[in-house]
Amino acid sequence: MEIGFVGLGKMGTGMARNLIRAGHQLTVYNRTPEKAESLRGDGATVADSPANAARGTQAVFTMLADDHALAHVTFGEHGIAAGLQKGAVHISCSTISTHLARRVMDEHTERGQVMISAPVFGRPEAAEAKRLIVVPAGEHRTLERLQPLFDAIGRRTFVAGDQPWKANALKLCGNFMIASMLEAFSESFAVVRKSGMDHHIFLEIMKELFGSPVYANYGSIIADEKFEPAFELKLGLKDVRLALDAAMEVAAPMPFASIVRDQLISAIANGQEGLDWSSIALVSARNAGLPTREAAQKSGARA
Amino acid sequence: MEIGFVGLGKMGTGMARNLIRAGHQLTVYNRTPEKAESLRGDGATVADSPANAARGTQAVFTMLADDHALAHVTFGEHGIAAGLQKGAVHISCSTISTHLARRVMDEHTERGQVMISAPVFGRPEAAEAKRLIVVPAGEHRTLERLQPLFDAIGRRTFVAGDQPWKANALKLCGNFMIASMLEAFSESFAVVRKSGMDHHIFLEIMKELFGSPVYANYGSIIADEKFEPAFELKLGLKDVRLALDAAMEVAAPMPFASIVRDQLISAIANGQEGLDWSSIALVSARNAGLPTREAAQKSGARA
Amino acid sequence: MEIGFVGLGKMGTGMARNLIRAGHQLTVYNRTPEKAESLRGDGATVADSPANAARGTQAVFTMLADDHALAHVTFGEHGIAAGLQKGAVHISCSTISTHLARRVMDEHTERGQVMISAPVFGRPEAAEAKRLIVVPAGEHRTLERLQPLFDAIGRRTFVAGDQPWKANALKLCGNFMIASMLEAFSESFAVVRKSGMDHHIFLEIMKELFGSPVYANYGSIIADEKFEPAFELKLGLKDVRLALDAAMEVAAPMPFASIVRDQLISAIANGQEGLDWSSIALVSARNAGLPTREAAQKSGARA
Amino acid sequence: MEIGFVGLGKMGTGMARNLIRAGHQLTVYNRTPEKAESLRGDGATVADSPANAARGTQAVFTMLADDHALAHVTFGEHGIAAGLQKGAVHISCSTISTHLARRVMDEHTERGQVMISAPVFGRPEAAEAKRLIVVPAGEHRTLERLQPLFDAIGRRTFVAGDQPWKANALKLCGNFMIASMLEAFSESFAVVRKSGMDHHIFLEIMKELFGSPVYANYGSIIADEKFEPAFELKLGLKDVRLALDAAMEVAAPMPFASIVRDQLISAIANGQEGLDWSSIALVSARNAGLPTREAAQKSGARA
Repeated sequence: MEIGFVGLGKMGTGMARNLIRAGHQLTVYNRTPEKAESLRGDGATVADSPANAARGTQAVFTMLADDHALAHVTFGEHGIAAGLQKGAVHISCSTISTHLARRVMDEHTERGQVMISAPVFGRPEAAEAKRLIVVPAGEHRTLERLQPLFDAIGRRTFVAGDQPWKANALKLCGNFMIASMLEAFSESFAVVRKSGMDHHIFLEIMKELFGSPVYANYGSIIADEKFEPAFELKLGLKDVRLALDAAMEVAAPMPFASIVRDQLISAIANGQEGLDWSSIALVSARNAGLPTREAAQKSGARA
Repeated sequence: MEIGFVGLGKMGTGMARNLIRAGHQLTVYNRTPEKAESLRGDGATVADSPANAARGTQAVFTMLADDHALAHVTFGEHGIAAGLQKGAVHISCSTISTHLARRVMDEHTERGQVMISAPVFGRPEAAEAKRLIVVPAGEHRTLERLQPLFDAIGRRTFVAGDQPWKANALKLCGNFMIASMLEAFSESFAVVRKSGMDHHIFLEIMKELFGSPVYANYGSIIADEKFEPAFELKLGLKDVRLALDAAMEVAAPMPFASIVRDQLISAIANGQEGLDWSSIALVSARNAGLPTREAAQKSGARA
Repeated sequence: MEIGFVGLGKMGTGMARNLIRAGHQLTVYNRTPEKAESLRGDGATVADSPANAARGTQAVFTMLADDHALAHVTFGEHGIAAGLQKGAVHISCSTISTHLARRVMDEHTERGQVMISAPVFGRPEAAEAKRLIVVPAGEHRTLERLQPLFDAIGRRTFVAGDQPWKANALKLCGNFMIASMLEAFSESFAVVRKSGMDHHIFLEIMKELFGSPVYANYGSIIADEKFEPAFELKLGLKDVRLALDAAMEVAAPMPFASIVRDQLISAIANGQEGLDWSSIALVSARNAGLPTREAAQKSGARA
Repeated sequence: MEIGFVGLGKMGTGMARNLIRAGHQLTVYNRTPEKAESLRGDGATVADSPANAARGTQAVFTMLADDHALAHVTFGEHGIAAGLQKGAVHISCSTISTHLARRVMDEHTERGQVMISAPVFGRPEAAEAKRLIVVPAGEHRTLERLQPLFDAIGRRTFVAGDQPWKANALKLCGNFMIASMLEAFSESFAVVRKSGMDHHIFLEIMKELFGSPVYANYGSIIADEKFEPAFELKLGLKDVRLALDAAMEVAAPMPFASIVRDQLISAIANGQEGLDWSSIALVSARNAGLPTREAAQKSGARA
């Protein structure tokens, strides 16, 4: 298939590469062109605008950081909607608000184009390794037709329904589940450390108890305070805020999500904007009066 | 070994049976004697008091519901401390406060006896199947000597340290981790349902995402609202309260635990005291204005 | 002065009437024209658009329900900005987001007009009785010049600064203070009632303790469950959400505001959208398993 | 009347002095005898034990810091219950748990003595100035008979009911109301400061809005960060914890109280144990990344 791909960040690059490996013709666009160039060697064509990445394709993927970025590449004279032919599909993989998902769909529907949401679960390594979980929603027939594309980028597909925004709601709730695990670990580690124990013991027990690679992975990151950003904290805050907005739209309170939001805001207020979102643990540590590796580094830098 | 066992509830019975299967001589005691009698067939001797269950043994296990019950069987003229010989060990497996753990240890130490905490993770089926996770803490040598007993009841042992109460703190944090997962599921399911989706889809995604049997098991219980008690909600509240107390002792805030506590209290105020603690999900459902199977049954019963 | 006034709801009508009483010439506009007509008898001219209400005036007041309504009457070809002459002032009294305050100011600045924010504290009775607290922000000289207008509608003026949006931030925090009092009363009343006491005793003590008319007034409303809307709950939720947004913009967590937001959402999910925001107390009552007058009425209606 | 008085801290001293001024004969006891000695000049007799302070009196007041202290002076061979004659009254003014209130009452009832709870609202200055609010509960006739004593120490009396523990529940809820105001101020001030405004403006508006001396007083303390202890933060935490316990006993959730508890624990973890409880504001300030006077002093001290 002729496919467009807009948004070549950590996630998008791996996804695009897997689409190429599966035999598809890709035309790619990225705001900072260097990232697009790196895919030329893999056989991709590089476009100079989202509209041109979409032009002539049967489907165009988008994988952007937030609502603002997706709106920017979709609307306007150089946007995807301007370039996409009738009947072609915009496959929106970004983690965005349910509100924007509806706006994007309306725009495409008006132009005789098709929009589906297909958010994905997985960190950049999973995108690279074709191990994503894909959660598409939209017209049933379109989803069936696109299944080979989902297979090219992920390990499993779960259809969320026939309205695109619902997949976005599911994705936001899924990220909230992970964020809740991060906060639960953060609080437990603080208690364990202040009780005079090595929190790695607690981590080992939790690995055995939950038997989950996600717990093992994030638990280790937090226990070792290795917060190099795979998923930036400010993006995590964005997602929790969108989850709260999606929940408010349907009148459902989310007290845990509210706590996570507050902790992430505190993290940003204390300079962690660019760290991994798992560094939410530093908030619990500080509130328990614990020394952190971060603090140690800062005071080292000062000395 | 000659072993005493006090407390033959859902958990204790399975543990005691596995100790017998491993070739140990058991003297058992339970407040309601019927449960003790059922173990006679397996070869256990039945004692008429905690003191007599402890007398002459090298180690006596306790597996009780709460602080009150453990204090009752430990202290006083018919208590374990009164019957246990010098040098013998009280292995306390109950989920209790760190405060009581220290009091029990002081009592035994004064009498020349040894106390270790060895809380366990796992539901009654796991106790029966010798699949518990055992988290002992106490004198290093004693723990080494008792390892065969831990092997007889569980699948893995994690030593928490040399002070018994620390194992209790770890256990409380572990239960908090599970409770946090329950609440996170509860909030997500409410949002998903109010968005007009089948929450089982969300459950399937979470099973794939976390790859954890605990998520699969509890997620299904909540999704299907099958709240027959394997672990009663009032015991769940007790544990979260003890976790908060243990955290306050060491000056660590636990905002998630506070939320869980509030939700469980709301559950009790609305008649869920005897349901499984996973029925915490009904609180989020009610607060989102969702109909629940519980409500349906009640209104059916009224009609 | 020649003055425009847009937005004649419960608050706006009282404010407009007091401006007329102070001797100003008013041209008024309201979306539903009946409310505007009622002011004709007081001497106001009725305009057929926001632009026409603003045209020829030295200052135009707006007092609308939310961001959407203010944006609607400000922007576009029939909006205030299109009608206002250069150098004239838009006095925005609505409780709106800091974000919209900045957008409205930018629009007016571009057109050589002046914008100030002047949110007010007080319920409709206070607006009618010229007892509002006015919190203006904007150019110092403009504020000085407009002081007689503030005096015409309120009992005291507090200048918030020279950037209009800051007054909006202050107003949102002020409403949050009231909302926090409502929630604190709600929780206390629930505990007092479940302890088998008449919560009116507690109210009397709080009136004596705080010595505040606001406590006396709202405390009585809640104690008697008289939730006829003076300030609708859905508007209260809007304000708390905007406070949280304003706080997130500057990276400050607000855990109390998060709780209030969750409680108000639960209220809406349970049909209280149109009640007074003090009916947030019904959420604590339900979560404590207490019978409420609301529930009694509903079940009466069913029977 | 012949009156005993046990507990001569900041509050108790003022109360005792006012009883003497009202013409009563006082026998006083305090753990650290110096404080008792200072009342000798006012005409009090100094006893060497709680029992002796109670012996021969018609009523003995207690005003202690916490449950532990009250239990210590009440029970045991040198305790009040051992010294008090039949029919005489123990007037317990301390802020204690509902649980202990019931225990103390049971003890006195068994001995043919009478117990009433009479917790008070007011800071030390109010105790000194006879301006306390007194909230007694117990036998109706006893309360009537003791009214002159309540009049001697306070400005108003509110009878809470005929069971002593209920007055304690009311007192705990009242303290929670004040704590909620402190937290609401803390969050608002943090937002206002981070928005680049002087938070004293916000304070002035709140003083006008609420018209409450309590808001004016505590608001100024927080705004100026003058946290010399009139009511120590650790006592504030004790009270909030007791409020949560009292609420749990009757199955009522208190989400605001949970937040306050977490913030106070964070305060203690960061060295504020001995500051005034209004220093809870430093937690919100830190979580918003704001510099605090405390931090400035510490870093000054280090330099």
